[in-house]
Amino acid sequence: MKATVFHGPRDVRVETVPDPTIKSPTDAIVRITRAAICGSDLHSYHGSQPVVPGFVLGHEGVGVVEELGKGVSHLKKGQRVVVAGAVACGECFFCRRGQVAQCSVSGAAVFGYGKNFAGTFGEIGGEQAEAVTVPLADYTCFPLPDSIPDDAAVFLADILPTGYFGALNGDIEPGDTVAIFGCGPVGLCSIITAQLFGPAEVIAVDNFPYRLDLARKLGATAVKVDEAQKYILERTDGRGADVAIEAVGHISALEAAFQAVRGGGTLSMVGVISDPSISFPMMAAFMKDLTFRTGLANIRSNIPHLAKLMERGKIDPRPIVSHTLALDETPYGYKIFDARSEGALKVLIKP
Amino acid sequence: MKATVFHGPRDVRVETVPDPTIKSPTDAIVRITRAAICGSDLHSYHGSQPVVPGFVLGHEGVGVVEELGKGVSHLKKGQRVVVAGAVACGECFFCRRGQVAQCSVSGAAVFGYGKNFAGTFGEIGGEQAEAVTVPLADYTCFPLPDSIPDDAAVFLADILPTGYFGALNGDIEPGDTVAIFGCGPVGLCSIITAQLFGPAEVIAVDNFPYRLDLARKLGATAVKVDEAQKYILERTDGRGADVAIEAVGHISALEAAFQAVRGGGTLSMVGVISDPSISFPMMAAFMKDLTFRTGLANIRSNIPHLAKLMERGKIDPRPIVSHTLALDETPYGYKIFDARSEGALKVLIKP
Amino acid sequence: MKATVFHGPRDVRVETVPDPTIKSPTDAIVRITRAAICGSDLHSYHGSQPVVPGFVLGHEGVGVVEELGKGVSHLKKGQRVVVAGAVACGECFFCRRGQVAQCSVSGAAVFGYGKNFAGTFGEIGGEQAEAVTVPLADYTCFPLPDSIPDDAAVFLADILPTGYFGALNGDIEPGDTVAIFGCGPVGLCSIITAQLFGPAEVIAVDNFPYRLDLARKLGATAVKVDEAQKYILERTDGRGADVAIEAVGHISALEAAFQAVRGGGTLSMVGVISDPSISFPMMAAFMKDLTFRTGLANIRSNIPHLAKLMERGKIDPRPIVSHTLALDETPYGYKIFDARSEGALKVLIKP
Amino acid sequence: MKATVFHGPRDVRVETVPDPTIKSPTDAIVRITRAAICGSDLHSYHGSQPVVPGFVLGHEGVGVVEELGKGVSHLKKGQRVVVAGAVACGECFFCRRGQVAQCSVSGAAVFGYGKNFAGTFGEIGGEQAEAVTVPLADYTCFPLPDSIPDDAAVFLADILPTGYFGALNGDIEPGDTVAIFGCGPVGLCSIITAQLFGPAEVIAVDNFPYRLDLARKLGATAVKVDEAQKYILERTDGRGADVAIEAVGHISALEAAFQAVRGGGTLSMVGVISDPSISFPMMAAFMKDLTFRTGLANIRSNIPHLAKLMERGKIDPRPIVSHTLALDETPYGYKIFDARSEGALKVLIKP
Repeated sequence: MKATVFHGPRDVRVETVPDPTIKSPTDAIVRITRAAICGSDLHSYHGSQPVVPGFVLGHEGVGVVEELGKGVSHLKKGQRVVVAGAVACGECFFCRRGQVAQCSVSGAAVFGYGKNFAGTFGEIGGEQAEAVTVPLADYTCFPLPDSIPDDAAVFLADILPTGYFGALNGDIEPGDTVAIFGCGPVGLCSIITAQLFGPAEVIAVDNFPYRLDLARKLGATAVKVDEAQKYILERTDGRGADVAIEAVGHISALEAAFQAVRGGGTLSMVGVISDPSISFPMMAAFMKDLTFRTGLANIRSNIPHLAKLMERGKIDPRPIVSHTLALDETPYGYKIFDARSEGALKVLIKP
Repeated sequence: MKATVFHGPRDVRVETVPDPTIKSPTDAIVRITRAAICGSDLHSYHGSQPVVPGFVLGHEGVGVVEELGKGVSHLKKGQRVVVAGAVACGECFFCRRGQVAQCSVSGAAVFGYGKNFAGTFGEIGGEQAEAVTVPLADYTCFPLPDSIPDDAAVFLADILPTGYFGALNGDIEPGDTVAIFGCGPVGLCSIITAQLFGPAEVIAVDNFPYRLDLARKLGATAVKVDEAQKYILERTDGRGADVAIEAVGHISALEAAFQAVRGGGTLSMVGVISDPSISFPMMAAFMKDLTFRTGLANIRSNIPHLAKLMERGKIDPRPIVSHTLALDETPYGYKIFDARSEGALKVLIKP
Repeated sequence: MKATVFHGPRDVRVETVPDPTIKSPTDAIVRITRAAICGSDLHSYHGSQPVVPGFVLGHEGVGVVEELGKGVSHLKKGQRVVVAGAVACGECFFCRRGQVAQCSVSGAAVFGYGKNFAGTFGEIGGEQAEAVTVPLADYTCFPLPDSIPDDAAVFLADILPTGYFGALNGDIEPGDTVAIFGCGPVGLCSIITAQLFGPAEVIAVDNFPYRLDLARKLGATAVKVDEAQKYILERTDGRGADVAIEAVGHISALEAAFQAVRGGGTLSMVGVISDPSISFPMMAAFMKDLTFRTGLANIRSNIPHLAKLMERGKIDPRPIVSHTLALDETPYGYKIFDARSEGALKVLIKP
Repeated sequence: MKATVFHGPRDVRVETVPDPTIKSPTDAIVRITRAAICGSDLHSYHGSQPVVPGFVLGHEGVGVVEELGKGVSHLKKGQRVVVAGAVACGECFFCRRGQVAQCSVSGAAVFGYGKNFAGTFGEIGGEQAEAVTVPLADYTCFPLPDSIPDDAAVFLADILPTGYFGALNGDIEPGDTVAIFGCGPVGLCSIITAQLFGPAEVIAVDNFPYRLDLARKLGATAVKVDEAQKYILERTDGRGADVAIEAVGHISALEAAFQAVRGGGTLSMVGVISDPSISFPMMAAFMKDLTFRTGLANIRSNIPHLAKLMERGKIDPRPIVSHTLALDETPYGYKIFDARSEGALKVLIKP
C-alpha cells in the first residue's frame, strides 16, 4: 500500500510499503478513508521526537473495517469506524476509570510514533496511509453513525478529544471566564468544547490574525498576546480568568496562563512541552491556590459523547480544516502546516 | 403607591396602598421599574394557595434602591438591583452551602405570598407595585450591570434561576439527551439553561404550537405530548433520556417524565404539584436506579453566574416575553396568562 | 449436586439437582465454598416474589473456578472468586458508566430469582448450592486475594455493595450527620460503609436491641424508633440529618426518613418496597429541596474498592454473621432469619 | 499585655507590649487561652520570611471574646472562639465559593506575619500573646461548643484545616492508597483527615522514628524515606499511590511524591517551598496525566465540619501535642520545635 514514510527531519515521503496484517487475534485492519496531520506530528517532523527512518506516520484516521482477528467480537467487516489515536483495552484498572491514556494493557501505545509511545505491542504503524493494523480493535475502534461525515469524524481520532480534555480538566462552571492561550487546531478544539460547560466568555489568545478570526467564528472573544492580560482582568473585575488553558506547548504561553488565572482557579495544560522539566512558579501557584493539570488526553473514553454531540449538530470542527489533500500531497501538507503558511490549520488527507 | 392587590379568586385590582417603609435596619426600599407575573402567582390567583384579600402580589422585580436601613452596608441609593424572589441572609448554615431556599434566618420568605412562605419576618408585600420593602437587603438585592436591561434582568428574580435549578438538578453531562416536559416560562428557562451543560439534544414536550415554536427557537427539538415517548426512545438507541425535567407541575407530566428517563438517569422536578402527596412509581424508580430531585429554587445563589452569562450575551430570556403592560393593566395580564390566550407567556409589568 | 430448592412459600429444601453446565462460551462454573441468605431472598421465601417450584435459590456466593467457556480470557481454573449477585458485561453503555445494574447485555440478570430478574439469559440458577454457572464470567467474577477469607468475601457478592450503594447515594460529606433507618444486614453494611465518607455521626435506628448493640459496635450511635426524630434534631441544631438512608423497605421507615432529613439533604433508599407505587410526600419533598435516590445496587463496579478496603483491614463485615450453617441446614437458616429469632442476622452457608 | 516578640533570626522574646484595641467597627478583641507554634512560624524564626523586629508572632489561637466593635453582630462577650489564622470576610466572590484564602476584602491577611500576608488591613498582630485584635470578627471567629477543649480547638486555627486541605485537594476516593510525605504536625493532620475519605491505606513517609510511631498510632502505615517507593509500588500492584501529599515543603519530598503517584493520580502539595520557582518534571507530569494542587489552606470555610467531627469524637489531634508551655516559655518552644529535639511536635502555649 501507499503510506507517508519518515526519512529524516523535514523529509517525509509517500511510498509503497508492505500491507498491514493481522498479528494478534484482537487486531483489525482498517482501510483509511480520511487521515490528518496533527500538531504533535511536527515533533516527529522536526526530529525533536526521534522516529526511525522508514516508519509510517500518523495517528488520526477514519476508515472501513477490512479484516478482523478471531478475537474481535464487537466489529463487523465493512463497518465505518474512527480509530482512537492511542490504543486502549477498555478493561484494565485505568480504562475502567476512563483514564485510557494510562491503559496498562496497551501501555498507551500511539499510532505512527515509532519507539516513543510504542507501548506493550512494540511499534504501531501510522494512519497517513491506505490502511492500518489496529490492536485491541474492539475498543480502539469506535463505530460511526452515517450522519457524521469523514471530514468531521477524523477529528474524533485525537484532536477534538484532546481539545476537550483541556476544557474538561479546567473544571469550567456555568458563568466562568475561560482564557485559552493558543489558537492552533488543539486550541480551537478547546474553544469549541469549552462552550459545552456554559462559560460566560471564552477569551482566545494568539498572534495570527487568521487564527483569531476563526476563534471568533467558533464563539470566542479573541485578543492578541500582548493585550491579553489587560483584557482578561477587565472582563473579570480584576480577578483573572476562572480557568486558563495552555494550548501551545511553550513556556511563554504557560507563564502567561499562570499570570492570567485567578486565585483558586484551574490551569489546564494541553499543549506539549517536550522539555523534561521546566521552571514552575511555585510561590505564585501557592499564593493562588492553584489546580494545575496536564497530560495525554483520554481519547477513547471521550469519543462517544463527542460523537453524539457531532451527530446532533452541536459541535462541528470542520471550520478548522484548511486543506484536504490527496495522500500523495502529504509532504506538502507537513510543509505548510509547519510553516503556518497559506492559512494552514487542520490538514486532512484523503487516501 | 399603586400596587396589584388580591381580592379573591380571579379578582386582582390595581389600587393605592400605603407606601413601603423601613421596618428593620437590614431593610431597603426598592422602587420597581419592571415586575412580572409568575406561573406560581396563578396558584394565588386561583385561590388554591390562600392569600388574604388586600395583600399585594408579585415576587419578580427589578428596580432602583430608594432608601436604606442603617444596617445595610453593601448597597447605595440609586443603585439598580434585581430583588431575589425569596429572601436570604447569605450567612447561615444553609446559605453558606448555596441552599438559600432553606435559609434559616429568613425562613425562606417569599415576596407577595401572604401567610404561605411568610418566613420569619411575617408577610412580605409583593412587587407588582411601585415599590417594595426588601428584608436582608444586603444579600437579597443583587446589583445589576448597566448592560443588562430591565426586561432581561427581571428574569433573574425567580423564573430564570428556577429554570436553571431544574437543569442543574438534572446532573446533565456533555452529550446527554435531555427531555423537558412543559414549555411554559419555567420550562422555556430550563431549555435555555440546560444548554449550559452541553447536551447533545434538548427535547421539549408540550401541546401548544406557539410554545413548541418558541422552544425550537431557543435551541430545543420540540414534540407533542403523544409523540414524546416514541421520539425520545428513537433518539437514545431505545434507552430513554439521560435526564428528564418536569416543568408543568402535574401528575401526568411527572408520569411521562418517569417513563421517559433511562435507567440510572435523573428526574428533576421543577414544576409545583400542590397536592401534599402523590402516587410515586416506587418499583419503577427502584428498577431504574433513579435520582429524583425537587424543590424550591436556590434563587439568590444562582443569580451571579446567570447575570454574568446574560451580560456576555450567552443567555437571553427576552424571547419568552409575550406582553409588557402598564401597572394598571396587571389584572388583564393575569387573565390572559391564566387562559394561555393571546399567545401569553411571560407577562412583564412596567410601573 | 446438592442445592437449595424452592418448593413453595416457606418451603425450601436441600435436594440433588443436575450439575451446572457451560451453556455459552462466556460462562464459567464456580464451585461454591461459601454462600449466604439475603434479606431479598425472603421475598421469594414469602411467595411475594413468585419463583417457580424446583428453582435453585441464592445470589451471594464465593468459590473456586472449576470450568471455563472458551470465550473467557481473564480467569483461570482453580482461581478463588466472588460472584457478583447480578450479572454484568462490563462493556455496554451502562457498564462503562459504572451503572452495571442497568447492563443492557445481561438485562441485569440476578442469580436464583427465576423469572423475575431473569435478564436476557433466561433464568440463572442460584448459589445456595454446591456449584453455579456464571454467565459473562470474565466480568461477573472478581478474583479474590488470599488475604480475604470466604466469610468476609461472601459479603462482596451483594450485601456490602448494596449497603455501600445506599451510603454512596447519600452524598455524605465530612462532618455530616447520617441517619440510617433499619439495622438488618443491609442497614449494618450501610453503617460500616457510610463511615468511609467521614460523617461526624451515624445514627442507627431500629427496635431490636441486639441489632442496636451491633450497630454501636460497628461505629454508630443507636436509638429506638420512637426516640429517633427527637435525637436527630438534638444532634443537628434542630435542622435534621444531612443524609437519611432507608434500609428497611417499609413505608413507615421511608416516612420516618423523610421526616428526619434536613432541608437540602439527601434521602437514599436502599430497602426494597415491593409495592409498585407508594404515597410520596411531594409537598414536603418540594419544601425541603430533596434529593431522593433509590435503586438496585451497582454491585460489580463497587467490588474492587470494597475488596481493597477489606484487604487492608479498613472494613470488616464479619461481625454481622450470626450463623454459619452446612448446606443441609439452609431451610433452618431461612426460618430463623425470617423470624428474626436466635439473634439471626447474616446467615452463611458452607457447602 | 505580654506577648512573643520577634527580635531577629532565632531571637524571640516574651515582653510587655501595648494592649490590642478595636480599630474598626468589625474588630473584636479576643483574650487568648491557648496558642500554638506553627511550622510556618519557623520561616519567620529563621529570618527566611522577613518580619520587622518588635512584631508579635503567632497565628493559631483560641480564646474568649472580650470586646466587640459596633459592627459585630454574631458574637457575644464572653463567648469561646477559635480565631481562623487567616482573616476572611465571608461575603466576597471568593469567600462565597469557600476559597477564603483568596478573600478580596481581607487580602488574605494572616496574624503575626508582619508585612508578608499583611493583606488590606496592614499588619495584624500575633496570637502568641495574652490577647489579639481580630478583624472581620463576625466571620473570622468561630464559636466553640463546650465539648471541644482548648487543647484540641487550637488545632482548628490553622494546622488541622491545613492538613485537611492537603487531603481534600488529593481527591481521595474510598479504597484509594494515599502516600503522605512528611510527618511533622501538618503531615500528621493530613494523616488524620485523609481517613475521612475512606482510603484503604495511608502510607506515611518520614525518617524520624518518633514521628513514624505517631503516624502509626493515628492510623497510617509508616515507612522510612528510602523504603517508600518500593513499599508504595508493592501495595498498589506496581501502579503507584492514587494520591500523594507533600507535607514537608522541600524539593526532595516533592520529587519523591511525583515518583510515587500513579498515572491519572493527584499530587497535593501542602508543604510550603519558599523558592519563587522550582524545577517541575513537566514530561513526567504529562505522561502521568497529573493533577497538581498547591495553596494556602481555606481555613475558615473548613472549620465548621472539622469542629463537628471533633465534637463527635471522630477526629482528635491532641496526640500530636508534644509540649504545653507557659507564655514565658515560648522562646524555648521555638528552640526545640526548630531543632526537632525532645520529641517536639506540636508545641502549645498557655498564656
